[in-house]
Formats: sequence, structure tokens, C-alpha cells
Amino acid sequence: MMVQKKTRGQLIVLSGPSGVGKSTVISELLGQRQDIYFSVSFTTRQPRMGEADGVNYNFVDRAEFERMIAAGELLEHAEYVGNYYGTSLKVIQEKLDAGIDVLLDIEVQGAAKVRAKCPEAVLIFIIPPSFEELSRRLRGRNTDSEETIAGRLQKAREEYQQIPNYDYLVVNDKVSAAAAEIIAILLAEDCRTRNRLHLVEGI
Amino acid sequence: MMVQKKTRGQLIVLSGPSGVGKSTVISELLGQRQDIYFSVSFTTRQPRMGEADGVNYNFVDRAEFERMIAAGELLEHAEYVGNYYGTSLKVIQEKLDAGIDVLLDIEVQGAAKVRAKCPEAVLIFIIPPSFEELSRRLRGRNTDSEETIAGRLQKAREEYQQIPNYDYLVVNDKVSAAAAEIIAILLAEDCRTRNRLHLVEGI
Repeated sequence: MMVQKKTRGQLIVLSGPSGVGKSTVISELLGQRQDIYFSVSFTTRQPRMGEADGVNYNFVDRAEFERMIAAGELLEHAEYVGNYYGTSLKVIQEKLDAGIDVLLDIEVQGAAKVRAKCPEAVLIFIIPPSFEELSRRLRGRNTDSEETIAGRLQKAREEYQQIPNYDYLVVNDKVSAAAAEIIAILLAEDCRTRNRLHLVEGI
Repeated sequence: MMVQKKTRGQLIVLSGPSGVGKSTVISELLGQRQDIYFSVSFTTRQPRMGEADGVNYNFVDRAEFERMIAAGELLEHAEYVGNYYGTSLKVIQEKLDAGIDVLLDIEVQGAAKVRAKCPEAVLIFIIPPSFEELSRRLRGRNTDSEETIAGRLQKAREEYQQIPNYDYLVVNDKVSAAAAEIIAILLAEDCRTRNRLHLVEGI
């Protein structure tokens, strides 16, 4: 693939309901586009079994998170089930300025805040082929109670209402196809005239 | 590649200066995306060596072209270096309605008219890596006089002023890369939320 010199990296936001297989799609995507910087979120929630600090999340305490909010160090943050989740602004800015694409995996509230602050961000929403299939995937994990699963499905229906605010919609039927669509979206965004005017002589 | 059911085909407009290698890129594109319908333009200019009626253009005389204009049979038409070029409306509508993507190879005036009539059309402009390279390619064809070449280069500079009206800009440095970018653009456009809302349950 031709690597075009970019004046600035793209800010890419990926959202999708719990159970859609977003992390699998992201792994596939980052495997093929190793130049993308995946932004690790900050959270005040406790690490789950197998989660590592700096890999899945940057785990901080409440006092530190509130200091970051007050100091304006976060691009966006939200409270979810009693815990803070947020995205550091500084690292992202540095990467974008260096022409590196930055990927954020955030939920719909955070995505709306990013859109408000960075109108040029590319927002992609991932859905399962159907709610029935989502329900099947959530049950297949064998980690959640029926009540939790029902809650996640209800949450998904609420999140779906925000889909019209996203630029692109990808159906995760097959992981490789979903990743291929996201790769095409990112290449197409690189081709947007406004991102390439510096290549045009005489205008 | 996953074939998504589409409610409507996409209207794709490709423009670019004479000599940029647009027809080679289009051949490559159509070879890989055989589902695309390439709309053959009508023109009053003389066929060049190797050009066939109904393949490269539908070659008609001035009287017939003017009849088509008067009868409202054209989506757009323009005069370019003393010759008429135009696009038939009827066939395009039928293809789009059937969910088939339609590709138009037209110059900047025609593209502006298509944009005005079909705001959802995807407009792609192809440029050479530089004017110097364009000049080299025009000379390499060995078909045009120095005067004609100078005219084409001047025309290219004028056309470049319309680039900001195009959605995407593709640099034809290497044909395969340019075609790959166009294929990515078309896939990304299929992924646009507005083109996929029919896949979302509950909204």
C-alpha cells in the first residue's frame, strides 16, 4: 500500500455494544495497520483478572482522575456504573501532530464529546448482524448472569439511538470483513480532498 | 469481500486532467469491481487511434448531440476544447435504482452539474504526481502537437481550481495504488451510516 505523507494523523473513534466483538476487530485492525496508535483509556475501576496497567487501561485512583479533569488533561471522560473512564489529551495531540493515526475505543457519550471537540474525527459504530446474534455472543462468553445480559441488551438498544451521529457503520458478521471495511474507511479518509490539498500544485 | 445489500447504487464521478492516465486507472478498477457499470459518455470529438464507438465513447455528430440536449436526454453536458461531452440520464437512473454503482468519467464542468443534480454523488479527482510528470505523459502519447500539449497543461491548471469541490483526491503515481484507493473509497462510501441505516434494528 502506498504510504502518503500526511500533515496530520486521523483521530478514529470506535464504538459498539458490549459483546459485538469490538476488541477482536481492533486486534485484527492493529495487526494489519501497525502504524496506528491505540490510545489506552484511564479508569478508576479495579483491574479485572488478566488486565494489565497500561495495556487494557491506565488504572488510577479517584483523586488522580479528578486532578486530571481539573487540569484539563482529558479529551473526554464519563462516569459509568460508579467509575470514571477518560482519554488523555496530551499523548493524542502529540501523535496526531506527528502524522500518526490514533484509535480510541470509547462508548457513545465519550464519542459525542470527542466529536464536539474534534469535528474532523472519524466516528465508526460497530453492530452485530442482529440483536439475536448479540444475545447469543453475550451468552457464549459464559461470564454474565441472565440479568446482566438483559441489561447489556437494553444498553445496546439505547446506544443504537446514537448511530446516526456516527460517520460509518460496520456490521461485524465476520471479523476479517469488518476489519477490512475499517481499513478501507481509514484509507478513504486519507484520500479526502481536505486532507490532501497540500499535494496539489498551484492552489 | 462481503457484498452488502444496497438499497441504491452509488453514482461515482471521476475527473482528472488529460494525460493523467485516467482510462488506465478505470480499466484496473473495473477489472476488480466488475459489478460497477461504467457509463459511456457521448461526444462529438473524433475517435483517437484504438478508441471504439460504444466502448470509450459513444461518438455522435454535433446535430445528434444538440438533439439530445434539446430532448433533455442528458444528465450533464459540457463543451471542452471545442467538442461536446455528455452523459445519458436514463440508463444511469435504471442502474442506480437496481442497486448498481455507476461510474462516470467526466470533466469538471460536467461534474459540477452532476453534483448540483445528485448531491449524494461521490466525486473523485485524479492528479498526476506533478505537472512535470503530466507534461511527460502527454508527450509520451505522441498524439498531440506541442501547441495542443501546452493547451492541455493550461487546461489542467484551470481544472485544478475545482479540486476543492471534489470529495476525494487520488494521486496517480502507480496505477494499482490509485485503483486500490478508489476501491477503498467506494467500500467506505458503502459503509456510510446514511447508506446502512436499513441494517439497524430498532431505529
